[in-house]
Amino acid sequence: MIEGEPEAQSGEDRLIARYFRPLATHPGAFGLLDDAATITPPPGSDVVLKADAVVGGVHFFPDDPPDTIAKKALRVNLSDLAAKGAGPAGFLLSLALPQTLGGDWLEAFARGLGEDAEAYRCPLMGGDTDRTPGPVTISIAAFGILPCGTMVRRSGARPGDLVVVTGTIGDAALGLLVRRDPDTAMRWRLEHRQRDHLIERYLLPRPRNAIAEALRQYATAAMDVSDGLVGDLGKLCVASGMVADIEVARVPLSDAARQAVASDPSLVDTALTGGDDYEVVATVAAGAKDALMAAAEAAGVALTQIGTIRSGRPGVRFLDHAGKPMLFNKPSFSHF
Amino acid sequence: MIEGEPEAQSGEDRLIARYFRPLATHPGAFGLLDDAATITPPPGSDVVLKADAVVGGVHFFPDDPPDTIAKKALRVNLSDLAAKGAGPAGFLLSLALPQTLGGDWLEAFARGLGEDAEAYRCPLMGGDTDRTPGPVTISIAAFGILPCGTMVRRSGARPGDLVVVTGTIGDAALGLLVRRDPDTAMRWRLEHRQRDHLIERYLLPRPRNAIAEALRQYATAAMDVSDGLVGDLGKLCVASGMVADIEVARVPLSDAARQAVASDPSLVDTALTGGDDYEVVATVAAGAKDALMAAAEAAGVALTQIGTIRSGRPGVRFLDHAGKPMLFNKPSFSHF
Repeated sequence: MIEGEPEAQSGEDRLIARYFRPLATHPGAFGLLDDAATITPPPGSDVVLKADAVVGGVHFFPDDPPDTIAKKALRVNLSDLAAKGAGPAGFLLSLALPQTLGGDWLEAFARGLGEDAEAYRCPLMGGDTDRTPGPVTISIAAFGILPCGTMVRRSGARPGDLVVVTGTIGDAALGLLVRRDPDTAMRWRLEHRQRDHLIERYLLPRPRNAIAEALRQYATAAMDVSDGLVGDLGKLCVASGMVADIEVARVPLSDAARQAVASDPSLVDTALTGGDDYEVVATVAAGAKDALMAAAEAAGVALTQIGTIRSGRPGVRFLDHAGKPMLFNKPSFSHF
Repeated sequence: MIEGEPEAQSGEDRLIARYFRPLATHPGAFGLLDDAATITPPPGSDVVLKADAVVGGVHFFPDDPPDTIAKKALRVNLSDLAAKGAGPAGFLLSLALPQTLGGDWLEAFARGLGEDAEAYRCPLMGGDTDRTPGPVTISIAAFGILPCGTMVRRSGARPGDLVVVTGTIGDAALGLLVRRDPDTAMRWRLEHRQRDHLIERYLLPRPRNAIAEALRQYATAAMDVSDGLVGDLGKLCVASGMVADIEVARVPLSDAARQAVASDPSLVDTALTGGDDYEVVATVAAGAKDALMAAAEAAGVALTQIGTIRSGRPGVRFLDHAGKPMLFNKPSFSHF
């Protein structure tokens, strides 16, 4: 005989109630007490769907702080919603946990996740928790809302469009090198704050959701930069059937990244192809550039023009300081 | 310089193009060539959201056939959509792959997934693939559509409602025992076809999406039975604030399960609490029972009345053949 809540609750129920129910603030999440959640899109809306997982030892170090692991797992998905012009509506979490991770880890993980769910107005809608004999694996599916048919595609770039990119490029890839080998920071003659900046950019993406609506209004094409600017912009160009001419000198670098590249010029390759930037690269018609720039400034997001779009055999061309096309060993990051 | 599609494609791009693009038949999946997908819910709709992951060595045996692993991963999610009364709209797949799994495995996995995506009209909308040093981990988020506010909740059971369950209970839990120890089938004196039936029920759930619409019209409460009938119905009763009185003699068992229980009466506990059934347990007002039964029959889904709902201290009571309440060691399956 099973009566009353305490007896009917399994270990998984208790774990969910303790750590995750406080994050399920959306009425359609039903307090995580049902089997599924609902969202009610406004009439005339599309629901934008995105899933991206992060795996311990692959996408983050097992000893990274659990709150930043949670935030990174959510933010890599928020970054796609931003680039596609969608406002966040909520997310589902599938969490596979090794036995070695205890309550302290989960508590910090849930705290970080809750902070970002609130900050980005993207509530936890549901999900599941499982045991795994492998590393902690965090699979998030995120949902966005936008007016029907207005998702910003990769394929909309047109001749004469300008190519713009948010924030700075290469910090996370350089930060990963510093995280792996702390001596790197000395070799690059980084100040402490520069070293910390690069590591922090690797740990914690800064998705550009603040300009999602502006991208939706003004961008002809956009995508987030997750596998390196060279490869990702290459994909956008192939999807659009266009060529992008990029001036490397215009690609925005943080002062930490500039210092690293000054110490070792070969690091420009790492910065442009290393991945984990979670910035947005977009194209915009020349006539809409000022409006997009103004909206980005109002949202506090740096936006830099780095090149132009023209017709030709689809692809991307990075021109060095002397105006010569650059060659890259491995243009795009891939686990496969 | 990166020009043209072949050069711009990473290993992950090629893997997705080869194995998964053929499954992305929905126009909003954009051929998996963009960063996100879209669905356009009809006006007045809710989108039902569900995520459930399966992990190698936890939810399936690593040497299970890859096509059935894929089907199980999708079907455990489809089962929730069915119980909630939603029609499938699509799903996202996050696939974490160990290096040991090669092209043959992936090809069979994608084939199985594609067969079910078509059979259940639930197309692949997007997702991601990652490397993992752990076991293969398949995280699926599935989406359903139904008229606004009509999702069948756990909490709607009312005094006088009848409790019904689809299909047969306990096959998968018994099948798992047979899968683990083939001698079990001999001890239970199972015929080959009975042994195969139980194993097949463990390998491959049969989600009851054919009666989702009927459940939405007629059920007062419903959920899918994934962690054992006793525990799951207990959750429904707690959510509804009701008591369910269940006659064990009425719980539908396959002839294979009946044979097992006849050989070893203690197995009735396994059948009722073991999990992995992926049947639906629902409550229905007495006046709507005939309509629900008729709709289930028309859909080819067996539906059996197993008990009734009354007021009282919330919980579930299983009465044995002598009318005495049964006790269970562990009413609900949990990994935690």
